[in-house]
Amino acid sequence: MPELAQSYPLSAKAARTKDSPISWLLKMVADDPEILSLAAGLVDQTQLPHDLVQEAISKVFAEEKAAKEALQYGTTGGNPRLRQLIAERLEAQGVPNVDPDNIIVSNGGQQSLFNVTEVMADPGDIVLVEDPTYFVYMDVLTSAGARVMGVTTDEEGMVPAALRERFAQIRSEGQRERLKILYLMSYYTNPKGANMSAERRREIWDIFQEELGHGAPFLLLEDACYRDLCLDGEPGPFMKSFDGENLYCAVSGTFSKAFAPGVRLGWSYLPEEIRKACSLQKGNQDFGSSNLNQNIVRHLMETGAYDEAAARFRSIYRTKRDGLIAALKEFWPADTQILEPLGGLYVWVQLPGIDTDPGSEFFKAAMDAKVLYVPGKFCYCEETQQERPTNAMRLSYGYASVDEMREAVARLGRIAERLATS
Amino acid sequence: MPELAQSYPLSAKAARTKDSPISWLLKMVADDPEILSLAAGLVDQTQLPHDLVQEAISKVFAEEKAAKEALQYGTTGGNPRLRQLIAERLEAQGVPNVDPDNIIVSNGGQQSLFNVTEVMADPGDIVLVEDPTYFVYMDVLTSAGARVMGVTTDEEGMVPAALRERFAQIRSEGQRERLKILYLMSYYTNPKGANMSAERRREIWDIFQEELGHGAPFLLLEDACYRDLCLDGEPGPFMKSFDGENLYCAVSGTFSKAFAPGVRLGWSYLPEEIRKACSLQKGNQDFGSSNLNQNIVRHLMETGAYDEAAARFRSIYRTKRDGLIAALKEFWPADTQILEPLGGLYVWVQLPGIDTDPGSEFFKAAMDAKVLYVPGKFCYCEETQQERPTNAMRLSYGYASVDEMREAVARLGRIAERLATS
Repeated sequence: MPELAQSYPLSAKAARTKDSPISWLLKMVADDPEILSLAAGLVDQTQLPHDLVQEAISKVFAEEKAAKEALQYGTTGGNPRLRQLIAERLEAQGVPNVDPDNIIVSNGGQQSLFNVTEVMADPGDIVLVEDPTYFVYMDVLTSAGARVMGVTTDEEGMVPAALRERFAQIRSEGQRERLKILYLMSYYTNPKGANMSAERRREIWDIFQEELGHGAPFLLLEDACYRDLCLDGEPGPFMKSFDGENLYCAVSGTFSKAFAPGVRLGWSYLPEEIRKACSLQKGNQDFGSSNLNQNIVRHLMETGAYDEAAARFRSIYRTKRDGLIAALKEFWPADTQILEPLGGLYVWVQLPGIDTDPGSEFFKAAMDAKVLYVPGKFCYCEETQQERPTNAMRLSYGYASVDEMREAVARLGRIAERLATS
Repeated sequence: MPELAQSYPLSAKAARTKDSPISWLLKMVADDPEILSLAAGLVDQTQLPHDLVQEAISKVFAEEKAAKEALQYGTTGGNPRLRQLIAERLEAQGVPNVDPDNIIVSNGGQQSLFNVTEVMADPGDIVLVEDPTYFVYMDVLTSAGARVMGVTTDEEGMVPAALRERFAQIRSEGQRERLKILYLMSYYTNPKGANMSAERRREIWDIFQEELGHGAPFLLLEDACYRDLCLDGEPGPFMKSFDGENLYCAVSGTFSKAFAPGVRLGWSYLPEEIRKACSLQKGNQDFGSSNLNQNIVRHLMETGAYDEAAARFRSIYRTKRDGLIAALKEFWPADTQILEPLGGLYVWVQLPGIDTDPGSEFFKAAMDAKVLYVPGKFCYCEETQQERPTNAMRLSYGYASVDEMREAVARLGRIAERLATS
């Protein structure tokens, strides 16, 4: 094979950007259709609302003028009517005084997280995350060269005392001016499926506000991507709802989880200064998200079809979550610790006495049995406040059917049993 | 209005990222529908192929399984079948041995340019560009902190001797290791509408190859976004066609110019090392472009509908280019210098004795007459090898109708006449 005499001198950023461990998991599934995956972050494909999308497209294309507008360039910030609908929805969900001009429509929620990080964090800057947290966002942070500090979580998410402790530590290290982002998954976290009570939300907000008094402003980045997948009870208030003057919190959401990832749209609502900075980044990246898709989603929101699809998904995921948990209780050791989620797509499980790391016997045996899960380890950041379990895993009820999940869980149960008695 | 006690300490990158001068031009058009714009980089909206898109969508949605797949997440690199079709098309256009695995589908061509720059250029690194060049790419370079050096152009594009001179200069400055990208619009440049002869292409390639021998590898970034808008003659070979082993040249293209910007898709074909690095960036940004739109474009390419739309656009733009040039000859002073383009969307015009800069009398009078153009100045980079004209402007025949263009040109002609005699 031909080669360059030497490799390209890539940018410092490229040198920092690593392939996510999750990519080889995904590649494995792609390469072997027999694999039962409890690892994939995909949504339930059988339930994707092709009928509703088709209906919306028919509406967009019913009028030639509107169809042609949808096929032209849009603006960087996004379709004005769509942004207005997102603003109205946020207000209906308790976020006060939402100005559509400070909303940016993005390519999924991911681009919002990426751009907020781009405009806030230089190499060596500090970002606080839940420990464990969303691994793809950790990839973004690694690529940005950020110092990622974990904050201990419990069944409800971030632990207030642990957050206080981190803030105190950062100050005592003389690093307070390097603190840029507090990243928080405010609903049904990835990977733990944890959800804060209303009290916890308020407490975290108050601690955050208090810390703002100790140095330069830093941003609360609220990732609300699973909010519309509330399966039991109420989802609780947005962190953003406490930020009545739109000064301290950036919130991002998505149309991927409760509607369709294939339209690749999300949004963020941002303090003006941050919105301006993110908008310039997005302009340089792509001038704005697909105008066609934005028109489709606009129709879906206008007609209530988005809500209809989300309700359909909630009902499906409720059944699937219950099916997965029932299987775990049936097939896994009685002392298995299951964090039963109230929403989202993930169940966090710990198998006492079993190492679940990628190099472990359990993981290898699972691979041999053609079952994939996400080892807890993939979700851990470098700097932690706690001893982290080596026996944890993230199981998703997004993609696989209840029968497939039962089968996968049964196989893993047999492996766990064998390892326990060997 | 409420405010933070101080502003957010934004990242170095955010601090470098400036609002493009073109944005206020665009905003002006958006705010006043009476304005006749020869400035917009938009495509002809009346000709957007809504019928072909609708047909492709019907095909994608005809089968439930395929529809649901299109609504799921795709892969970061893009739909495999679409990449194969792009590869086959490139090969048919003279690029040898195209491996679809080294193609990345992007959000328009812009995201390809952005990501190649991200993985190559650190602050202070050198990027060579045509002088004048595509201003949005200059925004990307400014944001990356690159040192942008212009290479003199003539009616054919980049001047070989000027490129040699730049290379020699960089070496004599001891900066050869900072040289990262040679950016070249290989077809119907923005803003000049210049197109290299086959000989010029080969000559530039040979100079580039020779320079590779003088230091670390750097990348030829070929922006081929206007290739499918060849209006007369043949478009000439891709620079990439000289790179038989896919080592030295990254080429990017788009479905925006000859099909529809609203689907927001483009592609790049990259040396493997660069492809890997860009793919990681794209993964962190958005996981991959809209799967739905990729399936639409896949159908369009499979059925020949893409080619049909491109041919339709070529025919339209031929008429519109001719209309604009006829109007210029009719209404503007006889000594007006018009660079008649063989393709693309732009005509570069110089008005002897008239200053066209944004602060000029001519520009202000044009605004008063509700006509917008892009002042040449917006397309000039900081470091130049030449005295640059203050009387140049970029006129686009993309968006406005022939009648509108005639009216706009007539108004500007009257202003030029008035200024010449005053």
